[in-house]
This record gives sequence, C-alpha cells and structure tokens, in this order.
Amino acid sequence: MTSNTKVIFNKIPTAFPQPGEHMVVAKSTIDLDTPLAEGDFIVKTLVLSVDPYMRGRMRAPETKSYSPPFLVGEPMNGHVVAEVIKSNNDKFKQGDYVYGNGPFQEYTHVRAAEAGRFVVRNEARDSGLPVSYFVGVLGMPGLTAYVGLFAIGQPKKGETLFISAASGAVGQLVGQLGKEFGLHVVGSAGSDEKVEYLKTIGFDEAFNYKTENISEALGRTCPKGIDVYFENVGGETLEAAITHMNVFGRIVACGMISQYNTKDQYGVKNLVSIVGKRLRFQGFIVSDHQEMEPEFLTKVIALLKEGKFQYRESISEGVETTPQALFDVLKGNNFGKQVVKVDRSL
Amino acid sequence: MTSNTKVIFNKIPTAFPQPGEHMVVAKSTIDLDTPLAEGDFIVKTLVLSVDPYMRGRMRAPETKSYSPPFLVGEPMNGHVVAEVIKSNNDKFKQGDYVYGNGPFQEYTHVRAAEAGRFVVRNEARDSGLPVSYFVGVLGMPGLTAYVGLFAIGQPKKGETLFISAASGAVGQLVGQLGKEFGLHVVGSAGSDEKVEYLKTIGFDEAFNYKTENISEALGRTCPKGIDVYFENVGGETLEAAITHMNVFGRIVACGMISQYNTKDQYGVKNLVSIVGKRLRFQGFIVSDHQEMEPEFLTKVIALLKEGKFQYRESISEGVETTPQALFDVLKGNNFGKQVVKVDRSL
Repeated sequence: MTSNTKVIFNKIPTAFPQPGEHMVVAKSTIDLDTPLAEGDFIVKTLVLSVDPYMRGRMRAPETKSYSPPFLVGEPMNGHVVAEVIKSNNDKFKQGDYVYGNGPFQEYTHVRAAEAGRFVVRNEARDSGLPVSYFVGVLGMPGLTAYVGLFAIGQPKKGETLFISAASGAVGQLVGQLGKEFGLHVVGSAGSDEKVEYLKTIGFDEAFNYKTENISEALGRTCPKGIDVYFENVGGETLEAAITHMNVFGRIVACGMISQYNTKDQYGVKNLVSIVGKRLRFQGFIVSDHQEMEPEFLTKVIALLKEGKFQYRESISEGVETTPQALFDVLKGNNFGKQVVKVDRSL
Repeated sequence: MTSNTKVIFNKIPTAFPQPGEHMVVAKSTIDLDTPLAEGDFIVKTLVLSVDPYMRGRMRAPETKSYSPPFLVGEPMNGHVVAEVIKSNNDKFKQGDYVYGNGPFQEYTHVRAAEAGRFVVRNEARDSGLPVSYFVGVLGMPGLTAYVGLFAIGQPKKGETLFISAASGAVGQLVGQLGKEFGLHVVGSAGSDEKVEYLKTIGFDEAFNYKTENISEALGRTCPKGIDVYFENVGGETLEAAITHMNVFGRIVACGMISQYNTKDQYGVKNLVSIVGKRLRFQGFIVSDHQEMEPEFLTKVIALLKEGKFQYRESISEGVETTPQALFDVLKGNNFGKQVVKVDRSL
C-alpha cells in the first residue's frame, strides 16, 4: 500500500475558508497494484491548480451555480496535470500526461466511466515548458484570459484595455495578449511589487489600488478612457471603471473576487451609465468556450517558447499545502498563478 | 404676426425639474408671411413628445452624454409631428406631415441647413391612426421597444420576458411585441389601474411594484425565471430581476428612470451573478439603430390597424402644458405615453 494524502472539504465557510477548519488534510493509502477493470487507469498527480472560483463551490449543495458544489467530507477537486502510471485504457497509456478535473490527492484510480474528465496532454511532458504552466497560463486560467479578451471583449487595435487583479493567474496573460494584439494595456494590483512586475511584462501602465484612489488612477493611466474592462474584482473597482468607460465599451465579467468572502456586498451606484454609454457588461464561463482551446494552446505555447510571454507563479510543494494556497489566493497574499506541486520530484 | 408660444429651458435642475422654475412658457410671435429662402419651410407643430430621456438633457452643457444638453434660455426640443404650411423646399411640400426633432413651439421656420432634422411622414396624415401615435408607438419610443427587444434582447420563442415601467411609452409595446413573438410576458407598473391595463393588452402577468415585494412578485410571475429583462427602471427592480435571471439571460438597458432625479443612487449589490449566470447586460440608444425603422413601421402600423395592438396615451392640450407633462412623466403620474397636442384642432 502507498500513502495517498488528500485534501478534504470539511465545512461550508461563511467568510474566508480557513485551512484546518473548512479544508483539512487527511492521510489514506492506495493499492497501486490492484488489478484494473477494462477502461480504468491510475494517475499520479503532478500539479494541481487552486483558483478563486473554488470559493463558489464551497456552498450548500442545494444552492445552484455553474460549477458543482464541493461535498463536505469528500476530497476537493479541480484542474490537475497527472501522469498515467498504470492503465487498462487504450486512450490513456502508461507515461501519458493528462489534464482535467481530478481530486486533490496524490494518486487517483480513474474508473472507466470517469475517464472523460481527462484529456491526454503530452505537451506538458514534451514541450520543455514547466508542467505547472499546463494548469496556469496553458490551463483553465489561460484559456479564460484568451476567451474573455477575444470572444467577449472583442477588442479593436489601438483601444484601451484595463485589467483588475492584473498580476493574477488570468490577468497577466490578458495583458500580454492585449499588448501583442495592439492595445494600450493598464492593470491594477494590490502591491507595489506586483505593479512593478506588470511593467516588466509589457503593461503600458499599472497602479496599486490599495495606495491610490482607483478612479483618479484610471483617469491618469487611461487618458482616452477604457474600451475593454477585464473584470476580476467587482465592487469599487467596477464602479470606478464604469465611470471611465468609453461609449460602446465592453466589460468582460470574468470574476469579482472582492465580493466572494463578504456578506456585505458593495452596492454599485452608477449602472445608469450602461444605458447612455451603450456598454455591454457580459459574464462568461470558460467551459462554454472549450472549442477555442486548440487555437489558444498553439498560439500561447509558441509565444512562451519564444520568450515573448512571461508567467509568474507561486508554487507551494506537497498536496498538504493546498488549503493554505487557496486561502492565500482568496486573500490576494500570493503573487501570480498559485500552483501546488504535488509531486515534489518534478 | 401670429402668436407662437414656446417652452423654454430656464434652469438646470438638481432633482425633479419643476414647471415654472426649470421649464417656463414664453409668448412670442412669428411672421408666417415672411419670404422663404431657398430650402426653407415653415411648419405648424401638431403633437410633441415628452420622454424620460429628456431629464438627461437638463444638465450642465459641459457634461458629455449621448444627447445634446438643453441650453438655458433656449426652447426645449424633441420629437414632433408637424405640418408643412409654407415651403421653398422640394422635399417638403405644403401639406406634408413631417417627423423629427423640433423646438417645443407652435410654429417653426426651418432653415435649409436644418431640414435634415425632419423626414416626411405622410402616414401620420393618411393612415387613419391618431397623429399622436407617430411620436409614440410609431415614433421614437416605439422604435426603442422594437430595437431593444429584438436587436438587443434577442429572444427565443417560449422564453420569459420581464418589463419594468411596463405601461409606459416603451414598455406597453415591448410586451405586445413579446406576446406576438411567443414569449411569456410579465410587467411591473406603479398602480393597480396600470396593472389591470397590462392584463387587458395581453400581458400574461403583471404586478404593482409599489404594493408588493418585487423579488417575491418576480418569483410568482416568472416561475421559469427571466430570460430577457427589458430594463426601464434601475435600482431595486434591477437588483430583483438579476436575482431571478436565468443562465444566459439578457438585460436590455433601455433606461433607469428611478435613478434620474436623485443624488442618492441605489447601489446594486448582486452583480456577481452576471459572471455565474453569464448574463449580458447591454445598453443601447435607439438612434444607433435607425436602419430598423422601415421594417418596424410597416409591421407595427399593420398590427395597430388590424386592432391587434393597443396603445394607451395621456394627452395634454396646448404647448403650454409641456412642462407639467414632462414633470408627470418623470414622477410616473401619467399613464401610458405622454403626448402634448399642440394643435388643439386635431
């Protein structure tokens, strides 16, 4: 028997989910030598992704939302890259790297009926890029950036793009895609260090929303107004962005992290501008746009290999660090895409 | 010389514009026998339209918006139907009825350079329908309903449409177009009399937002949720509608009358649902969609002539009633489309 540490969803939070209270680490074992039924395979988790949307899964199961709730007492789950270590499934061969939604544990026996949760992604093994990229800039967050900017934001060359939480998993790629496309790119972030990073990866302007009035900062950094606002934050930042939006501007509603862990939601008062400015304020979920993944992967893998794009990550080691990693993401304590390296040998 | 009473914009309001203070009536005269320069013509105003958007024009002229500001000391202006009584312009013949943006006064000498503000609309003379319809159900408000529902709302048969201010100039046509298209149509209005009217013109459900909790009423009247919300009101109604919107719902942002005359704007707290529900919340201005006018006129004139559509109006008589009429529209005191019959002989 092999040790198989798991991360369990333990209790539904009302504010920030706490490690050790709402998310706990549990020891268990797995028999890697068990015979495999037709279609089954066993994977070793290499990296796993913690992302802000997971806060929305920590809810009472009767509350409907776009993603299924975590179940109390069960392992949490999310995007992983894993290696097939044993297989009785023709589509998933031993040694293949797979990408998909997996439980947050070191090893998983994937039943034939659940095989569809994974796709083979041997680029993660063969491209020379870090495996962690395949749950970040080349995973769900990266595709979110690509879909949001191009399919929802529909930018035109020369326009101004503003991104909140711009140094995060999604934002930093949105900004680099925007620059490559020919936009004036402005980002907000929560520390001077993050602001400096945004400038080093090509943002035209960046500001620290914690130390500067947001509306004043937008006036200074977006002198021609905002044409596309890539919304990750909500609340006060959204209100300030609406004030600075241009006629026919688009608000790409990707997330509103400032509103996830509070019962005291911010009331946005200037929505009347949506009429006069003819704004389009549109929410999206990346999984509705999966058809864009092949073009996204081809394009962004090439740009990363050429060194034209950069991607900042926070990597913690060991599956047992997952609860703290998610807490840090929700608090904004981390810097860049938060990944948990489950296989320390990587 | 002929008497020519005008409505003058007298002072910029900070809350509700008051007759006699912000809008005043002034006497003047016009010489109808003056020789006309090439391209000039003189019109007699038959009906004029007062509409909620005019509140946005009562602003300091340095504030930019989609419609030009009224200028203090100058006549107010808006959509009118007028009759050409003298002409030196081949396109506008004596006896023609014209539609367009005209000053709120009994007679207007239209200079050649301003002739483009009008189009000949002899259907208003010849169709047998009331002339007032051509500034209402067949004028700007009607086209607003048509554009908003079809171009922005993009309904599918069988969906649920909710309309606020549903007995107003725009709302009552939106609802009838929605029924004719095959939608479940629900409206809110501010009196039991208005609610009854909505049911008589075919709305499936209607409720009085002043006597019932809006969110509870929406739960009862929209049991399958809302797919298209035609937004005329803003504030609390918008917040309640977002709560009941279905996934991939569309919010057609036509106006937010509850927010026009207050400095204490309502803060909408549940915008985070725009992400998870993938809502599209989109503002529009009818003048951006003028190309839809011919199909709109053909269709709605036919439905009115066949008696399939009805249209409730509040008509006041005499140009001097204009300030009170606009005040009533902004207060919700009127019922149906507010029109001023300038030519009492109609």
